[in-house]
Amino acid sequence: MRALVKTRPGPGMELREVPVPSMGSADVLIKVHHAGVCGTDLHIWEWDAWASGRLKPPVTIGHEFAGEIVDMGHEARAENLLAIGDLVTAEGHIVCGHCLPCRTGDAHVCHRTRIIGVDRDGAFAEFIAMPASNVMKLDGIPTEIGAIMDPTGNAVHTVLAGSDVPGSAVLVLGCGPIGCFAVGVARAAGASLVIASDFNPMRLDLARKMGAHVTLNPGSDDVVARCRDLTNGEGVDLVCEMSGHPAGHQTAFSAARLGGRVNLLGTPSRTTEVDFARDIIFKGLTLYGVTGRRMYDTWQQMFRLLRSGQLDPRPVITHRFRLEQIAEAIQVIKDGQAGKVILEVGA
Amino acid sequence: MRALVKTRPGPGMELREVPVPSMGSADVLIKVHHAGVCGTDLHIWEWDAWASGRLKPPVTIGHEFAGEIVDMGHEARAENLLAIGDLVTAEGHIVCGHCLPCRTGDAHVCHRTRIIGVDRDGAFAEFIAMPASNVMKLDGIPTEIGAIMDPTGNAVHTVLAGSDVPGSAVLVLGCGPIGCFAVGVARAAGASLVIASDFNPMRLDLARKMGAHVTLNPGSDDVVARCRDLTNGEGVDLVCEMSGHPAGHQTAFSAARLGGRVNLLGTPSRTTEVDFARDIIFKGLTLYGVTGRRMYDTWQQMFRLLRSGQLDPRPVITHRFRLEQIAEAIQVIKDGQAGKVILEVGA
Amino acid sequence: MRALVKTRPGPGMELREVPVPSMGSADVLIKVHHAGVCGTDLHIWEWDAWASGRLKPPVTIGHEFAGEIVDMGHEARAENLLAIGDLVTAEGHIVCGHCLPCRTGDAHVCHRTRIIGVDRDGAFAEFIAMPASNVMKLDGIPTEIGAIMDPTGNAVHTVLAGSDVPGSAVLVLGCGPIGCFAVGVARAAGASLVIASDFNPMRLDLARKMGAHVTLNPGSDDVVARCRDLTNGEGVDLVCEMSGHPAGHQTAFSAARLGGRVNLLGTPSRTTEVDFARDIIFKGLTLYGVTGRRMYDTWQQMFRLLRSGQLDPRPVITHRFRLEQIAEAIQVIKDGQAGKVILEVGA
Amino acid sequence: MRALVKTRPGPGMELREVPVPSMGSADVLIKVHHAGVCGTDLHIWEWDAWASGRLKPPVTIGHEFAGEIVDMGHEARAENLLAIGDLVTAEGHIVCGHCLPCRTGDAHVCHRTRIIGVDRDGAFAEFIAMPASNVMKLDGIPTEIGAIMDPTGNAVHTVLAGSDVPGSAVLVLGCGPIGCFAVGVARAAGASLVIASDFNPMRLDLARKMGAHVTLNPGSDDVVARCRDLTNGEGVDLVCEMSGHPAGHQTAFSAARLGGRVNLLGTPSRTTEVDFARDIIFKGLTLYGVTGRRMYDTWQQMFRLLRSGQLDPRPVITHRFRLEQIAEAIQVIKDGQAGKVILEVGA
Repeated sequence: MRALVKTRPGPGMELREVPVPSMGSADVLIKVHHAGVCGTDLHIWEWDAWASGRLKPPVTIGHEFAGEIVDMGHEARAENLLAIGDLVTAEGHIVCGHCLPCRTGDAHVCHRTRIIGVDRDGAFAEFIAMPASNVMKLDGIPTEIGAIMDPTGNAVHTVLAGSDVPGSAVLVLGCGPIGCFAVGVARAAGASLVIASDFNPMRLDLARKMGAHVTLNPGSDDVVARCRDLTNGEGVDLVCEMSGHPAGHQTAFSAARLGGRVNLLGTPSRTTEVDFARDIIFKGLTLYGVTGRRMYDTWQQMFRLLRSGQLDPRPVITHRFRLEQIAEAIQVIKDGQAGKVILEVGA
Repeated sequence: MRALVKTRPGPGMELREVPVPSMGSADVLIKVHHAGVCGTDLHIWEWDAWASGRLKPPVTIGHEFAGEIVDMGHEARAENLLAIGDLVTAEGHIVCGHCLPCRTGDAHVCHRTRIIGVDRDGAFAEFIAMPASNVMKLDGIPTEIGAIMDPTGNAVHTVLAGSDVPGSAVLVLGCGPIGCFAVGVARAAGASLVIASDFNPMRLDLARKMGAHVTLNPGSDDVVARCRDLTNGEGVDLVCEMSGHPAGHQTAFSAARLGGRVNLLGTPSRTTEVDFARDIIFKGLTLYGVTGRRMYDTWQQMFRLLRSGQLDPRPVITHRFRLEQIAEAIQVIKDGQAGKVILEVGA
Repeated sequence: MRALVKTRPGPGMELREVPVPSMGSADVLIKVHHAGVCGTDLHIWEWDAWASGRLKPPVTIGHEFAGEIVDMGHEARAENLLAIGDLVTAEGHIVCGHCLPCRTGDAHVCHRTRIIGVDRDGAFAEFIAMPASNVMKLDGIPTEIGAIMDPTGNAVHTVLAGSDVPGSAVLVLGCGPIGCFAVGVARAAGASLVIASDFNPMRLDLARKMGAHVTLNPGSDDVVARCRDLTNGEGVDLVCEMSGHPAGHQTAFSAARLGGRVNLLGTPSRTTEVDFARDIIFKGLTLYGVTGRRMYDTWQQMFRLLRSGQLDPRPVITHRFRLEQIAEAIQVIKDGQAGKVILEVGA
Repeated sequence: MRALVKTRPGPGMELREVPVPSMGSADVLIKVHHAGVCGTDLHIWEWDAWASGRLKPPVTIGHEFAGEIVDMGHEARAENLLAIGDLVTAEGHIVCGHCLPCRTGDAHVCHRTRIIGVDRDGAFAEFIAMPASNVMKLDGIPTEIGAIMDPTGNAVHTVLAGSDVPGSAVLVLGCGPIGCFAVGVARAAGASLVIASDFNPMRLDLARKMGAHVTLNPGSDDVVARCRDLTNGEGVDLVCEMSGHPAGHQTAFSAARLGGRVNLLGTPSRTTEVDFARDIIFKGLTLYGVTGRRMYDTWQQMFRLLRSGQLDPRPVITHRFRLEQIAEAIQVIKDGQAGKVILEVGA
């Protein structure tokens, strides 16, 4: 089959003919229809410090996908819960199930997480083998949406973790694809006010399409002051920090109300100076670091919001490419002019 | 001033001239614009066992209202948080602030609660005195809505207590005014599916106006079976039991999914046979008894949903009367052909 | 191997020679050291309505056990998390992992739960095969305790579900083995006052050994009045209802404080008349039905309390038998003169 | 009466004769028996940047105290909940009751908090006037303990906020008085392992007296490595950060387990460099800033732990002085050789 493979240390990926993956007894084999290209894939393409420290080439890239089950191991078959022909997506974090986080509802930070497209072969390929327990039926959700449920799930996790969203004021800092999804999730979950902030006007436009009541550009707007104005001087109940910039952290802490919450998903490449006394302690703030998706509460909430039509992430999709166009796909992301980028792999 | 007073034990109320209420130093005096007529007022009118055991005539009736501050005690004034001319509503449960429930966030079940219109003079009158701490500014919400924030708050409490509403399936059993408000609250809070059930077609019509996706009539529909069909066989995540009928309880327990929740507001006049093993224990259900409104989380959530326009309770209002028409107001409620009934007191 | 088997419909069990269980690739084979005899085993012995409706003979009985891993399937081996020679116990509910409860942290009420010793072969045998994912290392906890972690886990689930135990007043209604364990769990978790109630003086004696501050006998004590006296008139914060009697339910609702909580584990054989208005709604109570053990939060909490020595369930063990003495073991339970009864199977 | 007064900007305090405070209608007048000296009082004595920016001399200092009610305003009297002769303590944060935090259970971060001994006259005096709603009866707790319930409450808030303490591993970073109290609270609340860390051996000795299982000195111990060793490699469930040092923050984030929690009380005087990606986001940590005491959940939990004898903060008290010895009291605190310092004011 064809697959995009990081064949050796260094930048780029190669489209290669490789064997169809072999399958364990509890696995299913999935023919990939659509896959999503993620910032992580950009890091892998560029072979930055994180990527070179983690990946062991050769490895097939890609962790966001949806497709059709075409074969099943005998134990997966015996469970009788999935079937050949089912259209499915999958959680790309394969966890051990035995460690303390796994045993206490925090499998998203499992000690032994192996991520597809990073630690084992991934989804930018015609076929992928996955443990049946990670696979979920789409039940009518198009595979194009199924392919971006991984990042949409990041947004669901960020918006809903520990926060009573109905009636609340939410600030989304950073309107990359996950930030834009977060805008849609906050709206679907009954937020009364969703404010989106980004330096990039194209991204603010996507945020508006996803339902932002107000969009702010830190290049010209005083984000903290505007948030206070819009909330009767209180500040927002929840900040979803998606920018990963130290400046975003400071804005987040300042824009949150007394007793408010900051959920942090954007992963900064350097440290931030934090004034804990002024910004966290005297304000009684709660901060929460968001990794992946809660397994599987996040997925269930997402399936419901998608199936009901309350959430539609498709306006964020701006580009569609084929596997062989991966260099173009990476380029539009690097240029900062893309929302979500999709690979059309099969059908 | 004019006031509707239960002057002596026995049915009915009288429109009387009574003195304007006196005011303590921490109180405010409010000119009533609108008041809501509640099922409780019907019990008081009819002087049923509960009413005759609790009320000590003479007492001015009415606990749902909104109006304008026209005078303030000197301590209320000194706080500088409310002002003469403010349009306001109020929590009608006056609590002690010292008992264990008050000290642990459960003031709605304060040991020493005194309810206006029941335990002390109420709001079916031109003026009412209230402790400033129970009074909240409407900030643009019309007094007609302000007058029904007490029962709307019952609905907010019932829908949001302990439940993650975004994406969930909610069954509202009993579509009196509070049930209809609950439908609107569940929609505003991001429920994916809101099912409303009542024997009364007029009430089901109001529930539809408030946003119910599906309405069921237990006279002709198998409510439990329909709930399962609509939820992929699971049952609903949350039942809001507003009927107060033993049959409603049974439906609630059967319609809830495994691990689901039943919040009970409807107050039955007799006991219910409960099969705890089958219906509660083996299903892992949570039940919660709803009294009043959480003070003041419920009010804050409600203010936000109302101010944003996510929730508009007005479609439930079917009748408007003047104080002197109280007998007519009571009659339309008894006839079961009313949604919410409002008294237009002043302006 | 030797096993206690329900060979055919009807009362009793037989000690039989049967084949050592076969093992799937993700299973481990465990040599049983100790097993616990449960009220459920009594129902199975007596072949009551529940048992005859659920069991499909022949089936090996027993669901509480601990022992040593003696063989492993190749996938279990490959995970490298368990090893031959490990002393272990196991969760006896084998769940599907795919249904809504499984996917949302409520696997204890999985739609497809299969219980060992009920729905598939159990632990009153020299060997048992279990999915590796259900198996946990004892890490120094004696197998005698490991064998009763299933019912101790019921107690942990009942005491800790949804309740802030530190500093609280807890009433345990019904002092069978699980009630006695609950007394110990409540003490270990920092309850300020643990009251235990039972008609059986021997059981009250066990409850005192497990740390009950006060024991009450409903035959001579007014349990509700005493609970109020001991809590400054408030009532208790948490009732653990372990009796499964309608009278216990009424006591539970009356003894709980305003805003309090009743967690129900005892499974009644008939219905209870509940006055929802007086006992649940006006009191603002929360009720929760307890099934099994939360997977695996309950187990983690239990392991910690056991390993630290904060909880020692052994004072509740009153009898030890060998497999061939099962009739005697059943008889001491029926006579109501036993705490926990253990089978010494191997070593 | 005699009072310790900051009479003018600048270091020190003066013992002065001042009038007995006047009392509002909802206030009570309390004869102070014991008062606690806090680090805040040291800042005020030294007139540091914070103090000079906040205090408006003349102001009587002191915010931790207990004593006897000797007079009551007429509304406080009418409530009939407190009485002359009652031994009491008080929450020293006087809040507005109307702002969003006050209305949503977060009064500890009220927008208009006025603190006794800082923003209005305090407790280092023979008498203090307090709103009755801030006053709580000791009901048998000695006034010496009552006088330190304010900082003990800080510890209760820090240990119990958002964390399931029973069975958990808790690291207390910084063993000043509040850190030592936190050790005792964690033990009383059922923690399985309490580790205390400080550079000061005298403080570690106090931590041991309060029940620390393990004490560590960062001067000689690798705190993070030892925490991991003691927790099977996981790290601790909860860190109570009481040191207020940037190095403490780093230790806290590193010592916490995946999915763990860091509650921050120590207020640093400068910023901390935080690696959010590595330390917060990829670990799935929750951080919470602790201000004051939750009003009044924290107080209720504390009263219960104190009255049951589960918690006794007295081993932390190392020095007792009279009002006129304030300079000596301040000096022993500055010397770092004191635990908790008490002023014996009256009796």
